[in-house]
Amino acid sequence: MDNPEEWRQQAWAHLTKLRQECPLVQCITNFVSMDLMANVLLSAGASPAMVHSIDEIPEFTPKVHALCINVGTLTPDWLPAMKVAAETANKEGKPWVLDPVAAGASSFRLMACLELLGMKPSVIRGNGSEILALFKGSVDPNSKGVDSRHESTDVVEAAKSLAQLSGCVVAVSGAVDVVTDGQQAVSIRNGVAMLQKITATGCSVTALIAAFVAIDPLHVVEATASALSLFGVASEIGMDMAKGPASLRMHLIDSLYGLDQGTVFNRVKITKL
Amino acid sequence: MDNPEEWRQQAWAHLTKLRQECPLVQCITNFVSMDLMANVLLSAGASPAMVHSIDEIPEFTPKVHALCINVGTLTPDWLPAMKVAAETANKEGKPWVLDPVAAGASSFRLMACLELLGMKPSVIRGNGSEILALFKGSVDPNSKGVDSRHESTDVVEAAKSLAQLSGCVVAVSGAVDVVTDGQQAVSIRNGVAMLQKITATGCSVTALIAAFVAIDPLHVVEATASALSLFGVASEIGMDMAKGPASLRMHLIDSLYGLDQGTVFNRVKITKL
Amino acid sequence: MDNPEEWRQQAWAHLTKLRQECPLVQCITNFVSMDLMANVLLSAGASPAMVHSIDEIPEFTPKVHALCINVGTLTPDWLPAMKVAAETANKEGKPWVLDPVAAGASSFRLMACLELLGMKPSVIRGNGSEILALFKGSVDPNSKGVDSRHESTDVVEAAKSLAQLSGCVVAVSGAVDVVTDGQQAVSIRNGVAMLQKITATGCSVTALIAAFVAIDPLHVVEATASALSLFGVASEIGMDMAKGPASLRMHLIDSLYGLDQGTVFNRVKITKL
Repeated sequence: MDNPEEWRQQAWAHLTKLRQECPLVQCITNFVSMDLMANVLLSAGASPAMVHSIDEIPEFTPKVHALCINVGTLTPDWLPAMKVAAETANKEGKPWVLDPVAAGASSFRLMACLELLGMKPSVIRGNGSEILALFKGSVDPNSKGVDSRHESTDVVEAAKSLAQLSGCVVAVSGAVDVVTDGQQAVSIRNGVAMLQKITATGCSVTALIAAFVAIDPLHVVEATASALSLFGVASEIGMDMAKGPASLRMHLIDSLYGLDQGTVFNRVKITKL
Repeated sequence: MDNPEEWRQQAWAHLTKLRQECPLVQCITNFVSMDLMANVLLSAGASPAMVHSIDEIPEFTPKVHALCINVGTLTPDWLPAMKVAAETANKEGKPWVLDPVAAGASSFRLMACLELLGMKPSVIRGNGSEILALFKGSVDPNSKGVDSRHESTDVVEAAKSLAQLSGCVVAVSGAVDVVTDGQQAVSIRNGVAMLQKITATGCSVTALIAAFVAIDPLHVVEATASALSLFGVASEIGMDMAKGPASLRMHLIDSLYGLDQGTVFNRVKITKL
Repeated sequence: MDNPEEWRQQAWAHLTKLRQECPLVQCITNFVSMDLMANVLLSAGASPAMVHSIDEIPEFTPKVHALCINVGTLTPDWLPAMKVAAETANKEGKPWVLDPVAAGASSFRLMACLELLGMKPSVIRGNGSEILALFKGSVDPNSKGVDSRHESTDVVEAAKSLAQLSGCVVAVSGAVDVVTDGQQAVSIRNGVAMLQKITATGCSVTALIAAFVAIDPLHVVEATASALSLFGVASEIGMDMAKGPASLRMHLIDSLYGLDQGTVFNRVKITKL
C-alpha cells in the first residue's frame, strides 16, 4: 500500500472491527501501567484481562485473543508466568506482543527481554534506546531508565536487522514511529511530545497493538501501524483541550473512545518509508 | 421498607453517618484497582488502608471497621493473607466483603473464591457471570475475563439461592443492581452504561459497600443498596459532564465527594423486587 | 535565610535546575502510589524509574540521581531490595528519601521503618503520626492507617529530636509543613486541605523531595522546603479549578507542569520557625 488514503481507510476498518469484536487481551504488565493500560484498551473497544498468575495461565490464556507482556517492574518471580503465557499463546496460535521496558537498564532486564524475544512475539514495541539495546544485546551505561536517548528514526536500520534476526515485527516509538518486518518499513507521524510526560503511555500503546493484531493477525505490520497512529490521533485531539499532562491523559482516553471516521480520515498519517 | 422515599432517606442517612464516622476500610485488592478504590473511599468519606501483608494483619485488622477482599490479580501467595484477614475480621465481629473478580475464568480463581466464600463474608458483590460461576461452582468455558456475559436480572434466582446456601448477602451488579439475603431482594436502578468502560469501578463499589456496612452492620442489605445506589447516582451526575470514560471517572469521584441531600433524594432508585 | 523573598527565589532556582537536569529518580514504592508518583515526577521535570528488583539494583541504582523508598504496601519480600538500594545509594553518595507510611500501624511496619531509618536517609517525610511513631519507636494503638491523628505543628519538637538522633532531615506534612535538621526549622504554608482526599499525594511529594535534593544535595533542608512548597502551590492553583478530589488531582499535575516564575514568586510561603 503506497497511498496514504488506503492507510487511513484501513485504520478506520481496524478500529471498527475492534469495536465490534471486542477482543479479550491478556496483559502481564508492570504495576505502574495496569490502570492506564486497562482503561486505554476499554476505551478503544477491547476487553482487558490483567491475569498474571502461572496457576491459571494454562487454562486462561487459550481463551484470550491476544497477549501483551511488559517487563516494566520485573522481578524474577514474574518471568515463569510470562514464559508460560508466551508458550501458550504460541501453541494456540494467538498473537502476543512484547514491551521491553528499559531493556538496556540492567543485565537482569536485558537477559529477560532477550529470552522473551527468543520466544517469537508477533511484535516488539519499544523506544529507540530499548530497541537498540535488544539489537546490540548490551546494557546501556548511560541508561535513563524508561526514557529514550535515541530518536526512533536513527534506529531504523537496527530495527530492520532486529526484525530479520528475530522474525518479529519491530515497532519503534518516537517523534515519528516506525514499524518494520525487516523488509518493508512504515512511518507514523501522529502523536504529541507531551505524551512523554505521562507515565505508561508507551506501555498502553503496546497493549493497543496487541488488540489490533488480535483482529487482523495476518497483517501484523498494518495492524501495528493502525494502533500507533490512532493512539497518536487521540493524543492530538486530546492536546487541543489539555492544559498539561494530566488533562492530556484524560482527554486522550476520551478521544480514543470517541474517534469517528471523519477524524480518522483527516488525521491518520501512515506512509511507507 | 416498601416506600421509595424511605430508601432515599436511608441512603442519605447512611452517607451522612459515613462522612461523620470516617470508617477505616482495609482493602486487600488487585493491583489495577488500588488507586481508584482508595480514591473512591476517600471521596465518599471513608479512610482506606491498602494493607495486605500477613505479617501485620493479625495486629492491624482488629483496628479497622471493615475489610474488602478482591481476587482480581490473584496469585497463590496472596491467599493466606486474605484468609487470615477474613478470619480476624470474623473473630472481631467486623464486616467483610468479597469481590470474586472473574470467578469463572479459571479453576484456580474459582477455588480461591469458593474457599473465601466458605469463610462467610457479610456481602459478596459480583457481576452476573461471577455470581453464576460461584453458584454453579464451575468454570465458564466462554469467560470474557472480568466482563459479564449475563444480565444481573437474569441471575436473581441464582443470587437468592447462593445467599441462602452461603448465609451471605449477595449483590449482583448490572444495568439494574440486585441485592438479596436469600429472602428479600432489592433492585437499584442507578448508574450509567459507560461505567463498564472504566476499569475497577466494580472493585471500587465493592469497597464502598464495605464502608457502608461498617457504619450500619445490622442492616447489611440496606447498607449495600445505599452504596450501590449512591455510586450510581454519582456516575449519573458525572455523566452529565463527561465526554468519555476518563472524564466520567473524574467527575464520578468529584460527584461522590459533593453529593448533597437534594440530589440523593431526587436520584436514588431503590425498590423491593 | 530569613527573608521570604530569598526562599521564593531559591524555590524557583530549584525548579529551573530540576527542569534542566531532569534527574533520574528511582522509586521503590507502594502499589497505590506508583502511577501518581511517576506522573508527579514527570510533570515537575524529573525522570522516574520504578525499579524494585534486587536483581538489578546493584547495577541500576548507581546510575540514578536520587532514590525514594516508601513502605506503603510493604511485605517482607520487598525489604531486602529496599536495603540494598539504600546501601548502594549511600555508597555512591546519592541522596535517598524515606516515606514511613503508616509507621505506627503495626510492629512489622514500625520495625521496617526503624531499620531503614538506621541506614541514614537524607530525608524522612511523614505526617505527624508517622513521625511521632518513629520518634517514640512504638505502635499507635489508635492508628488510622495512613491518616494522621496529629497536627504537624504539634510534632515540631519530636521532629527536631528525631532529626538529631537520626542525623536525617525530617519533614512533617500537615496544614503547615515543617522541615528540620535538628537545629533550624522551616515552615511551609502552602497546600490545600483537599489533598488529604486524594490517595498517594504524600507519597508523591516525598518522591518530589528526592528529585529536588538530587539537584541540590548540599542544601537538603532548602531543597526539601522547595519541593513541599511548590507541590503545595500547584495544589492551590489546581484548587481554583477543581470541583472535587479527582479534578484537583488532575489540575495539580497540570499546574506543577506549568509553574512559572511569577506564580512561584507570588505563592511560595517558606519561613524560618
